Amino acid sequence: MEKDNIVFGAHSINEALNQAVDIDKIQINLATKGKYSDIISKAKAQHIKVSFVPHQKFKKYEHLNHQGIIGYISSISYKKLEETVEDILKSNSKPSFLILDGITDVRNFGAIIRTAECTGIDAIIIPAQGSATITKETIKTSAGAAFKLPIIKVAHIKDAIFYLQSSGVEIIGASEKSNTSISKVNFNKANGIILGSEGKGIQPSVLKMLDVTAKIPMAGEINSLNVSVACGMFLYENLRQKS
Amino acid sequence: MEKDNIVFGAHSINEALNQAVDIDKIQINLATKGKYSDIISKAKAQHIKVSFVPHQKFKKYEHLNHQGIIGYISSISYKKLEETVEDILKSNSKPSFLILDGITDVRNFGAIIRTAECTGIDAIIIPAQGSATITKETIKTSAGAAFKLPIIKVAHIKDAIFYLQSSGVEIIGASEKSNTSISKVNFNKANGIILGSEGKGIQPSVLKMLDVTAKIPMAGEINSLNVSVACGMFLYENLRQKS
Repeated sequence: MEKDNIVFGAHSINEALNQAVDIDKIQINLATKGKYSDIISKAKAQHIKVSFVPHQKFKKYEHLNHQGIIGYISSISYKKLEETVEDILKSNSKPSFLILDGITDVRNFGAIIRTAECTGIDAIIIPAQGSATITKETIKTSAGAAFKLPIIKVAHIKDAIFYLQSSGVEIIGASEKSNTSISKVNFNKANGIILGSEGKGIQPSVLKMLDVTAKIPMAGEINSLNVSVACGMFLYENLRQKS
Repeated sequence: MEKDNIVFGAHSINEALNQAVDIDKIQINLATKGKYSDIISKAKAQHIKVSFVPHQKFKKYEHLNHQGIIGYISSISYKKLEETVEDILKSNSKPSFLILDGITDVRNFGAIIRTAECTGIDAIIIPAQGSATITKETIKTSAGAAFKLPIIKVAHIKDAIFYLQSSGVEIIGASEKSNTSISKVNFNKANGIILGSEGKGIQPSVLKMLDVTAKIPMAGEINSLNVSVACGMFLYENLRQKS
């Protein structure tokens, strides 16, 4: 994260929060922890991650009057769930949303955004916490797709799923335990495709909410694909059926 | 590449070449260039890459009596084209070979080997030159698949294609210029799927040899997938039709 992407000092950060600037995370010097309770509660209300770090973390910013508090401004502008979904549903009766439940590797995240753009996904939904943030590396790996595709950040994945389902969007998730191959699922409708984290897959409580679970066919012994490759197969099957 | 993966000094390298140990590359100190013509010609006959480097390159090996010549032993044991293809065709009437025409990124290479293992590919064919070598990073990214799947190194990709075709294997390549979607290609036969390099795709002279070219369907503006994601879509379609 480079200098031009930060906002520092209590006054500036407070103002950024008031203006709803897209901030990925706020770091506060451990030693000044008690000082910024107002900012912390405001940040939490906006689902911005706040962490307390030793003062060495701020070493490269020592020439700035940061007062022990730095916010990292997002490189992209996130969209709001409700209005983005409504806009998409107005112009497209069979859109596809991609929901990422905790992808943490920045390169995988970038590759997935790129694949989504290439396969006609209408918007990507990510959780405010527990996901890789969109860094310059993500944007580079996405081949610029991070600027082209609407990316929606939500407080909780479950609320987004519930909202999509109530808008008539069917939620399809990848699960190794499913007996249905993705090639047998009907993707030719309004849908949301959800992928879980590299290590753990989709959280069990989210899995319960899905309309359809399906597995990627496997023929070897390893039975485990890189998440961006698995995503590619899902989105290819979706596009194949829709086109 | 770590210490236990090297062989050094003229005598040892000569012996390794005589025993046909799998060596990925040999580096020779520029200053001693003239000294090792025998080794160089023997290495070239085995299609091993030889490069001349400044003596600083050997700094971390200065405690060894390397005499300005170091060979990097491959972490895996490569297979021979003819006998591997014959063995596979004996036990499987519709095998799939994956041919990689110059994949240079180590992480992509590993992800592709992993995907190949998961989708039932019978063997991978790579060129001796102009491809990423199988380093510890490749093996890690492959999730160990590099040890499970036969990997064949050939002097020239074209010779391998010619050999496969003469054995009744149809060669299918990815080309953006094709009008046929991969979903319309018949994969349900003995085939070889060829993927080109990240930047340039399949070399034009190789493209001419192919039996079928096909493109991955695209719906966005970027029209360019990460090569390991594109590979995943190809191999998924192949497995979908074969299973």
